[in-house]
Amino acid sequence: MTYTSKQTDLPLVVNKVAQLRELLDTVRRRGETIGLVPTMGALHEGHLSLVRRSKTACDVTVVSIFVNPTQFGPDEDLAEYPRTLDADLRSLADCNVEFAFVPSNEEVYCPDHRTWVEVTGVTDPLEGKCRPDHFRGVTTVVLKLFNMVGADVAYFGQKDYQQAMAIRRMVADLNVPTRIEVCPTVREPDGLAMSSRNTYLDPNARRRALVLYESLEMAKQLVDEGNRDAREIAERMRQVIAKAEDARIDYVALADPETLEPVGEITGPTVALLAVHIADTRLIDNRLLEPSL
Amino acid sequence: MTYTSKQTDLPLVVNKVAQLRELLDTVRRRGETIGLVPTMGALHEGHLSLVRRSKTACDVTVVSIFVNPTQFGPDEDLAEYPRTLDADLRSLADCNVEFAFVPSNEEVYCPDHRTWVEVTGVTDPLEGKCRPDHFRGVTTVVLKLFNMVGADVAYFGQKDYQQAMAIRRMVADLNVPTRIEVCPTVREPDGLAMSSRNTYLDPNARRRALVLYESLEMAKQLVDEGNRDAREIAERMRQVIAKAEDARIDYVALADPETLEPVGEITGPTVALLAVHIADTRLIDNRLLEPSL
Repeated sequence: MTYTSKQTDLPLVVNKVAQLRELLDTVRRRGETIGLVPTMGALHEGHLSLVRRSKTACDVTVVSIFVNPTQFGPDEDLAEYPRTLDADLRSLADCNVEFAFVPSNEEVYCPDHRTWVEVTGVTDPLEGKCRPDHFRGVTTVVLKLFNMVGADVAYFGQKDYQQAMAIRRMVADLNVPTRIEVCPTVREPDGLAMSSRNTYLDPNARRRALVLYESLEMAKQLVDEGNRDAREIAERMRQVIAKAEDARIDYVALADPETLEPVGEITGPTVALLAVHIADTRLIDNRLLEPSL
Repeated sequence: MTYTSKQTDLPLVVNKVAQLRELLDTVRRRGETIGLVPTMGALHEGHLSLVRRSKTACDVTVVSIFVNPTQFGPDEDLAEYPRTLDADLRSLADCNVEFAFVPSNEEVYCPDHRTWVEVTGVTDPLEGKCRPDHFRGVTTVVLKLFNMVGADVAYFGQKDYQQAMAIRRMVADLNVPTRIEVCPTVREPDGLAMSSRNTYLDPNARRRALVLYESLEMAKQLVDEGNRDAREIAERMRQVIAKAEDARIDYVALADPETLEPVGEITGPTVALLAVHIADTRLIDNRLLEPSL
């Protein structure tokens, strides 16, 4: 099979791994580079910023759309997760994406699947504590996608900070020949980090959700003012979040940006991370804090 | 850098991952296929049969020599494991192998290595029970080697039957783009399966070690004669092994050739597997039993 696609037909929607491999082998034989943007669909400007970055840097861009069941816990929102394939494909067409890879669960996981990629250390705290087996599902499916696509570069958002660090760790430890690029979080005009789960928020909850951004900005301001006490800054962040009367905090943490180990005194670059339930929606966000030394 | 090597200089010994990648990128750009034979060195005719198979089927053959520390238990023979690099390289030269990849521990595992590839199910019984974490070390290093080399085909011996099945499972589950070929066990003239650990045996122990082969041949004969009772066959095998007065059996098992689940009544292809200590040396072997139905 040869790869032919008129600009107007983009993206070519591929459902099967074998077809994807065949198409991308042709791309590679032409000496062209391949960028991969792994997504669970429900695409927003955050995803599209990754897509545009890939389009700029690579000859051919593959966007995968797959709601990966193995990264959801039994009580999580797998069934409710927004699925908006038609709109997603229109967005990818607007970006001139060459390939949308949209496999079924059965195409990704065979019935006797028994292999897991486990990153320890960086996945242990924070999300790892709140969502057991979440990162195991993420790193396993991401490595599978890397192997299916054979991309030169793969793009991830900083919004899922711990995920990005886990994937970087996996790629380094397993000598995966795909380079990882982590792109800045894209925010709504008022500061709320873009997330497919924001659609769960009713207008009132959407307003209350701003406390996440406010608390991170306050942390930045405190560090800029010379405060180096991570515990105090986290406590002040919790007070800001508590202004949303129904906010339920999973964690507010200041951590080492590489290892995600907790920081006591801020002596270098530090990342503030948080996970907060607003109404029934669990939101995460983070911000790098870079003290002038 | 370009790949240049006179026939007389083969194999080219490569110690660094980056150099290996560069050399093999050149091979791939020429459209040539790459075969990989992962070994721990101390090469014998078993290894060399894999090497010759790769040389026949692939344009370029890479043999890795790396005694992988993560697949040894704390009480196992990592320190004593035979290291015979000069002789190994001469054997590879005789086979006209293009590349010997001989990395240091530090080149393979960075100090903050935290990622493990875990195959469950097929790795649980037999060796998995006797050697906790063994297969985790094997599958992790093999995936690393696959990612370093980007081979089209990788060759493994049937002698390490459960290992071969674990690697097949990993490759299928993680969509690894390397094909696995499992080649027949090579035996000494009297039947003992070739193994780097055979060098541990003194002449008397070497003689007693023949009970492994004898018990497997007897199992084959019993099945040929119509015996379908796996428990009885395993018991008869144990009696043969007990002829070696100091033999200590880790397991003797008849199992499904794919899943390695225990078999009660033999109704189709079955594999007989065993692990036995003779003197201080732990030996493994196996044999496929194919009843005429």
